[in-house]
Amino acid sequence: MSYGEESIRLHRASRGKVATLLKMPLETLEDLALAYTPGVAAVSLAIAHDKSEVYALTGKGNTVAVVTDGSAVLGLGNVGPEAALPVMEGKAILFKSLGDIDAVPICLGTQDTQAIIDTVRYLAPTFGGINLEDIAAPRCFDVEDGLQDLGIPVFHDDQHGTAIVTLAALVNALKVTGRRLEETAIVIAGAGAAGIAVARLLRVFGAPNMTLVDSREIIHKGRRDLTPVKAGILEFTNPDDRRGGLAEALRGADVFIGLSVAGIVDQAMVRSMGKGPIVFAMANPVSEIAPELALEAGAAVVGTGRSDYANQINNCLAFPGVFRGALDVRATRITREMMLAAARALADLVPRPIPTAILPSPLDRSVVAAIAAAVAEAWEMRAGLPVGVAATGEAQRITSPSA
Amino acid sequence: MSYGEESIRLHRASRGKVATLLKMPLETLEDLALAYTPGVAAVSLAIAHDKSEVYALTGKGNTVAVVTDGSAVLGLGNVGPEAALPVMEGKAILFKSLGDIDAVPICLGTQDTQAIIDTVRYLAPTFGGINLEDIAAPRCFDVEDGLQDLGIPVFHDDQHGTAIVTLAALVNALKVTGRRLEETAIVIAGAGAAGIAVARLLRVFGAPNMTLVDSREIIHKGRRDLTPVKAGILEFTNPDDRRGGLAEALRGADVFIGLSVAGIVDQAMVRSMGKGPIVFAMANPVSEIAPELALEAGAAVVGTGRSDYANQINNCLAFPGVFRGALDVRATRITREMMLAAARALADLVPRPIPTAILPSPLDRSVVAAIAAAVAEAWEMRAGLPVGVAATGEAQRITSPSA
Repeated sequence: MSYGEESIRLHRASRGKVATLLKMPLETLEDLALAYTPGVAAVSLAIAHDKSEVYALTGKGNTVAVVTDGSAVLGLGNVGPEAALPVMEGKAILFKSLGDIDAVPICLGTQDTQAIIDTVRYLAPTFGGINLEDIAAPRCFDVEDGLQDLGIPVFHDDQHGTAIVTLAALVNALKVTGRRLEETAIVIAGAGAAGIAVARLLRVFGAPNMTLVDSREIIHKGRRDLTPVKAGILEFTNPDDRRGGLAEALRGADVFIGLSVAGIVDQAMVRSMGKGPIVFAMANPVSEIAPELALEAGAAVVGTGRSDYANQINNCLAFPGVFRGALDVRATRITREMMLAAARALADLVPRPIPTAILPSPLDRSVVAAIAAAVAEAWEMRAGLPVGVAATGEAQRITSPSA
Repeated sequence: MSYGEESIRLHRASRGKVATLLKMPLETLEDLALAYTPGVAAVSLAIAHDKSEVYALTGKGNTVAVVTDGSAVLGLGNVGPEAALPVMEGKAILFKSLGDIDAVPICLGTQDTQAIIDTVRYLAPTFGGINLEDIAAPRCFDVEDGLQDLGIPVFHDDQHGTAIVTLAALVNALKVTGRRLEETAIVIAGAGAAGIAVARLLRVFGAPNMTLVDSREIIHKGRRDLTPVKAGILEFTNPDDRRGGLAEALRGADVFIGLSVAGIVDQAMVRSMGKGPIVFAMANPVSEIAPELALEAGAAVVGTGRSDYANQINNCLAFPGVFRGALDVRATRITREMMLAAARALADLVPRPIPTAILPSPLDRSVVAAIAAAVAEAWEMRAGLPVGVAATGEAQRITSPSA
């Protein structure tokens, strides 16, 4: 039985993946009087008098909405909100299992940018953070940008989760292959949400030589078909204004970062790269090039998005810790500093990387605590608060969910 | 320690009342591959090909959103969405505990009618039903009316939950006092969401003689200050066009239904009613008249909204069973027939009512199954489906959560 068949069987048996868990008992009339009326009136009044009490007296501060419009689900495309729901439920159980964060799947029946922004804005009082998911580019950029004043973190995981994990993988792969970032030529295939976000984060990290290739060709100054977002990344990529397709881009490059589609890289392209190149072929479910072929063609380090090969470069290494840290210190947004801190913390979890182990396992429970601590510290540095003392005074407890 | 203090202490200790429960394991990479990528892609595609599969493969069909704008929370008024959250969490644990229904609190940061309608519409793909809660009248009527074409049940509990339980209580109180509905004069104090809904449901049930009194006076044909909704109920209330205040309305009446504010009824008013009257003083947390005073003044049956007196007329007797039944047969809305069936089933649970026991306890676990079966049957009769065979073929199993 294939993964797909077995997965459908399991989903049918359980009718989905998330349910409601009671945190207070409801067995007696006394329980009812305390959890609901008349007792709950005092709880409501306490929050009405001091809105910040909502964090102490309700689940808001530990609850994230996983919001999608169903327009770019996995590699399946625009399958709509109902078909997106099993994926959002999956994300929710990852949040809970890895980050001890309560998560609510929200699949919206609209793909209008302003309607999505308005809806998330209206949902905000209930949630401690918003994880945007599987929203197509370029809409995802506008949606995220339009919500940064919300007062709670709004984080598009397809962009930033991917960027954080890719940067961590790159840091350790450079270490393994003895490269310095300043002398490394990087080619990114795919200029959707993930490709753009990876380029932007690598730039902040200091990568001087990146070239993006979209589904047509290298993104260069001569093109007249670029979206504003793609045109924008030209300010810090393709410094020599190279032209051509993916094959031309890869010639002599040190690193390939694939966030595109299956099978677009062949062995000849890998052989044309610099000696012992780094190949991250992260298209899902089928990579840009099969890992065994890339290794045979001379790649020194190969990573994919898949769980059945070494070096799984998977978002779930990042988002639970990023949100755990942000919620612990009640950060009002996720900053670039927090993302860089998350990537560094993730890379540091493998102090002696080897070609077949540049990242920890996605189910390694130490990952969340390490990233959460780094993210919380980065926020507090920025906010001018003393490191390690969260607004709630409980950061240390919460950032160690495995303790 | 008062209920309020103890409730705040409990809420602070647990940080709210609802959390996320995993229905599928997530311990191994194999689990991850089945619950999330790559396996979940097949689940999404199955739904993309046949949208009705979302009911079999996700939690949608058993999940209700509890939606408020925070404008009429308990008796506290317009305290806003954050202060409403503990109440919505309370509702959610009642849904889960009593009806085995997963429930998500949603407190909206808007009180604009059209914005609420749009937001709920966009949320609909994720949920099997919408419970509107604590939205002020007359906005609540427009919001509910604007969402009846959604394809899933949208039910404003402050209106219809109250109406169902009040009707059930009235049926058994009439039985206890040997009255026939056709000869019974009913006075309803309060013309907000609950008062209007009670009047409307009693009308469908056949009550010929009802008079409503709002915060000013009797609702009569001479008033020029009536909202369209209040003017509308004049079509079937106050047949003799009586004028005056609550005292005038109650003179000679058989039944008082209070859905208003504390202390507006005194013993003289009760004595002015017909012999051995029925007094439902349901204002919360303090009744229109204390039960002991009403009894002393001659009332034959007294009910309140409170858990510390006999005859608690509480919404939570109705909504878990109503939604359980509607979800079991995938009803696309809640009809008047379903509400009447729910009220009859609830009244029938006390076959020999006595003055101090006209309704079952709110925590009696047999209530949900009885109401759910009646509601499901009422929908299927209407839909032309054979009774007892739900769309999913599993109605019987699900309507007996206690089995």
